Amino acid sequence: MSDDGNQATRDYKRNSWWDTRIIDMEPGVIRFSGYPIEELIGNVGFVQMIWLMLRGELPSRGQAELLEAALLAGVDHGPQAPSIGIARMAITCGVGLNNAMASAINTLGDVHGGAGEQAVELFRSIAAAKANGTPLELATREQLAAFTVAHGKFIPGFGHRFHPVDPRAPRLMELVRIAAVDGIVSGQFRDIGLAIESALSDEKRRKRVPMNIDGATAVIYAELGFPAPLARGLFCLSRAVGILAHAWEQQQQGGRNKGPIPRDELPSYSGPPPRPVPDGI
Amino acid sequence: MSDDGNQATRDYKRNSWWDTRIIDMEPGVIRFSGYPIEELIGNVGFVQMIWLMLRGELPSRGQAELLEAALLAGVDHGPQAPSIGIARMAITCGVGLNNAMASAINTLGDVHGGAGEQAVELFRSIAAAKANGTPLELATREQLAAFTVAHGKFIPGFGHRFHPVDPRAPRLMELVRIAAVDGIVSGQFRDIGLAIESALSDEKRRKRVPMNIDGATAVIYAELGFPAPLARGLFCLSRAVGILAHAWEQQQQGGRNKGPIPRDELPSYSGPPPRPVPDGI
Amino acid sequence: MSDDGNQATRDYKRNSWWDTRIIDMEPGVIRFSGYPIEELIGNVGFVQMIWLMLRGELPSRGQAELLEAALLAGVDHGPQAPSIGIARMAITCGVGLNNAMASAINTLGDVHGGAGEQAVELFRSIAAAKANGTPLELATREQLAAFTVAHGKFIPGFGHRFHPVDPRAPRLMELVRIAAVDGIVSGQFRDIGLAIESALSDEKRRKRVPMNIDGATAVIYAELGFPAPLARGLFCLSRAVGILAHAWEQQQQGGRNKGPIPRDELPSYSGPPPRPVPDGI
Amino acid sequence: MSDDGNQATRDYKRNSWWDTRIIDMEPGVIRFSGYPIEELIGNVGFVQMIWLMLRGELPSRGQAELLEAALLAGVDHGPQAPSIGIARMAITCGVGLNNAMASAINTLGDVHGGAGEQAVELFRSIAAAKANGTPLELATREQLAAFTVAHGKFIPGFGHRFHPVDPRAPRLMELVRIAAVDGIVSGQFRDIGLAIESALSDEKRRKRVPMNIDGATAVIYAELGFPAPLARGLFCLSRAVGILAHAWEQQQQGGRNKGPIPRDELPSYSGPPPRPVPDGI
Repeated sequence: MSDDGNQATRDYKRNSWWDTRIIDMEPGVIRFSGYPIEELIGNVGFVQMIWLMLRGELPSRGQAELLEAALLAGVDHGPQAPSIGIARMAITCGVGLNNAMASAINTLGDVHGGAGEQAVELFRSIAAAKANGTPLELATREQLAAFTVAHGKFIPGFGHRFHPVDPRAPRLMELVRIAAVDGIVSGQFRDIGLAIESALSDEKRRKRVPMNIDGATAVIYAELGFPAPLARGLFCLSRAVGILAHAWEQQQQGGRNKGPIPRDELPSYSGPPPRPVPDGI
Repeated sequence: MSDDGNQATRDYKRNSWWDTRIIDMEPGVIRFSGYPIEELIGNVGFVQMIWLMLRGELPSRGQAELLEAALLAGVDHGPQAPSIGIARMAITCGVGLNNAMASAINTLGDVHGGAGEQAVELFRSIAAAKANGTPLELATREQLAAFTVAHGKFIPGFGHRFHPVDPRAPRLMELVRIAAVDGIVSGQFRDIGLAIESALSDEKRRKRVPMNIDGATAVIYAELGFPAPLARGLFCLSRAVGILAHAWEQQQQGGRNKGPIPRDELPSYSGPPPRPVPDGI
Repeated sequence: MSDDGNQATRDYKRNSWWDTRIIDMEPGVIRFSGYPIEELIGNVGFVQMIWLMLRGELPSRGQAELLEAALLAGVDHGPQAPSIGIARMAITCGVGLNNAMASAINTLGDVHGGAGEQAVELFRSIAAAKANGTPLELATREQLAAFTVAHGKFIPGFGHRFHPVDPRAPRLMELVRIAAVDGIVSGQFRDIGLAIESALSDEKRRKRVPMNIDGATAVIYAELGFPAPLARGLFCLSRAVGILAHAWEQQQQGGRNKGPIPRDELPSYSGPPPRPVPDGI
Repeated sequence: MSDDGNQATRDYKRNSWWDTRIIDMEPGVIRFSGYPIEELIGNVGFVQMIWLMLRGELPSRGQAELLEAALLAGVDHGPQAPSIGIARMAITCGVGLNNAMASAINTLGDVHGGAGEQAVELFRSIAAAKANGTPLELATREQLAAFTVAHGKFIPGFGHRFHPVDPRAPRLMELVRIAAVDGIVSGQFRDIGLAIESALSDEKRRKRVPMNIDGATAVIYAELGFPAPLARGLFCLSRAVGILAHAWEQQQQGGRNKGPIPRDELPSYSGPPPRPVPDGI
């Protein structure tokens, strides 16, 4: 960026078409929620900064550690995941890392990244029923039934197409248990998560339906008081790390216009047989 | 995600069309660079994880702290920045947080986020000339001249359209100085950054051209041994935080189809005057 | 693209993980719905090709002309529209035309481009009620009431924040009227659109709520038998033209990192006042 | 969109931060290059409108037909192409058609869509040398050599990894030949394209390197006077059709989180073997 005239004395008019509580600036000054940036740098961690930007206040150390664990846990699940596969394919098309990242992050929608958001909503509905006096087990069954009616058979946060037990979930839940013992969080959403796991397994006697990464991070986000949509936003920050790493690795490996299938293969075709274009179309 | 059959005994064929060193998986197992995910969670920080994913090994604590400072410093520069403005506008169009983030991160290109990448390349060219025996001041002038011929008059990392002195840069450079004293980094890129600042100010006698956020983070990324393109990728991870925060805030504020200018204004028009469509077109 | 070995005799295995009815290929051969590409080029128009790709069969000439009118009508609504503003801002960040287009098209969501999709659904619900014997005026009132309960007060396709009468709608509706007279379409959705216009105006006695571009194109897409979600997809193809044109124009005009507000302005700030970062955070 | 107050008498201030020649609006009025939209709808074709938006004037019928052929020819090349594969994968992640389209269009970069842009630049460099008096064959060899030095061994527009002869190119070139005979274009870029084809085949005696879709459409765009970067933009408008069609088809087929490889496969792993996380990290 180049210096452009005598900045320090320029009058800046405040345009209220855009208003924010997040950041304030004047020439030579940047403050986040009132905190000068030069006091934050080197004194506050990146995860604490993420919290400050989203919540307006700094978190306690215990809160930040729990958020840190959730963010770390979701960074990647391999090139067979569509977000990661897309990042790797995009970079071979000659676009920049920022573009490959964007194409991939864009897909963290209702099915691929929104599961955490839906899980937080489900947990909170159970917590609300509990707060109204319904016992946990009954509240869980009732809300699961209502959820299934509204959204279909997939319960967000539980089960996994690939892992019999998702190795990330028990570890995260243990950190929540410890944080509850230490008084950093209440632990009520961990209890709710365990109750859902139990209810789902009751219903499918021959196999368990254990909590997965979306469910475990949703427990953490709910314990920490994040609104449900931010579960998706935070998953995007987390998964962006794996997306960048894989795009970078693919760029180093090379390849041009790399598509989803190997070069000696073609998709199968199930459309009309060869036919001529009619005259006078 | 739903459980889908008896996972533990399924045979997975390895498809070498996609190969990675970053992550390995089998049912129930996820390892990053050989480290089991459940050992990383709660023991390794998010910034250390970012390093592991990009570099293949864990960083030292000092290295992670310097990276943490660089990531924190770049998170946001307000709604007048195109990336942030785009995030805020996008969310009012009824798309998800992941989509608003993607539209915005996509713009962190050569001019808006790529400055850090170019600055790292410039610094490294000066370091290479130094390593060949050219004194720092001469190497700096020569490489600046070569850069200007190749890329034009904007020197990435220096000067700022808004800030007489970018408040983020001196603080970051101080952390580099301390890290060099502690032997965590060499400090040679800080020296190079200061030499460029000096050379640019010599040439424009009436005003200084101080280092900005792109230059200061580029010093850090160069000191930490990151390849130049990853300066852009890391800036994307950093700026994604501000992008998310502003999209979220705008979503809370409401607004529908919010464009760049207030509703009682229109763009100016400088095209042809009104005219009829010709017949027989 | 470079030639890579002896293509004509390479064996291509068909991989059914991806299956399509749209296109089939072998070395030297490309067919769309069975039609060889070299027979389509120069004999079939671009809009007929769009229809073929989406529907699997070629349209009649009258059908193509109506679709053509709808696509033309939606191409642009000026830089104050968020999609167009975003395209213009993005290109000044140093990304390619494809990237500026992508960031913008990405925002054609529920509020900015999805209105056409919702309008088609509304029209079809009224048509279904009519088919069950309910008179048009009653069916219209009932479905409008149900829609408002489900989706809120904004009726997609009607009214406009800027235009007392959207100049695009009457012209499109006239083309539908003529096409119905010519037997190309039934005209029932035009009748439904007029019935909604009438019902909305009845309810707000002091002003009319005329059909807008989303409503008029939705009438056309419904008349032509397109599923509701394709109303959004077709709007994306249409608006992509204006998005490209504005990104290109902005690239010609220049500008670096152009944000939403003029350079002598700042957003207003409504967050906490200046405060120091606490110790021991 | 909803009606919002008494529009017809509202004063709109013109904000020159955004200026355009493309479109002008006042309440009830929309004009493109001075032409009222209601006169364009139904009288001008979609491809003529594309030309008007990009060039500021309407094309002749012959010019529009040639552009139409180029746009039609590039709409799709199957799910093994990264742009198409990405669109199909993205839609299974629960995002909207506009989002799946955006993620895919975003990848039409230097390697996947930019070939046409580079080919136009190459053709124009040969035309400029010819205009300076160099005979066509010599100008072709010289510019090819210069291009290879600057950009590497891939000559954009020629050869194809899959097709021995790209079936789209001869048909497009024939339309150019006819248009030159009819005086609609000069035909000089067709001559240049043939000269490059000849020069490349001379150099690789055992096989031909015929023109591909990027080269043939580049001939058309050059003949029609489009600046080179618009070759990429126009390819984006063209490929957007196939991107939409495949995203729509995949949405109809179903699938959740569909990644690039079949579900019984995993990527190969070539990173470090299992190892424990060190203490005290």
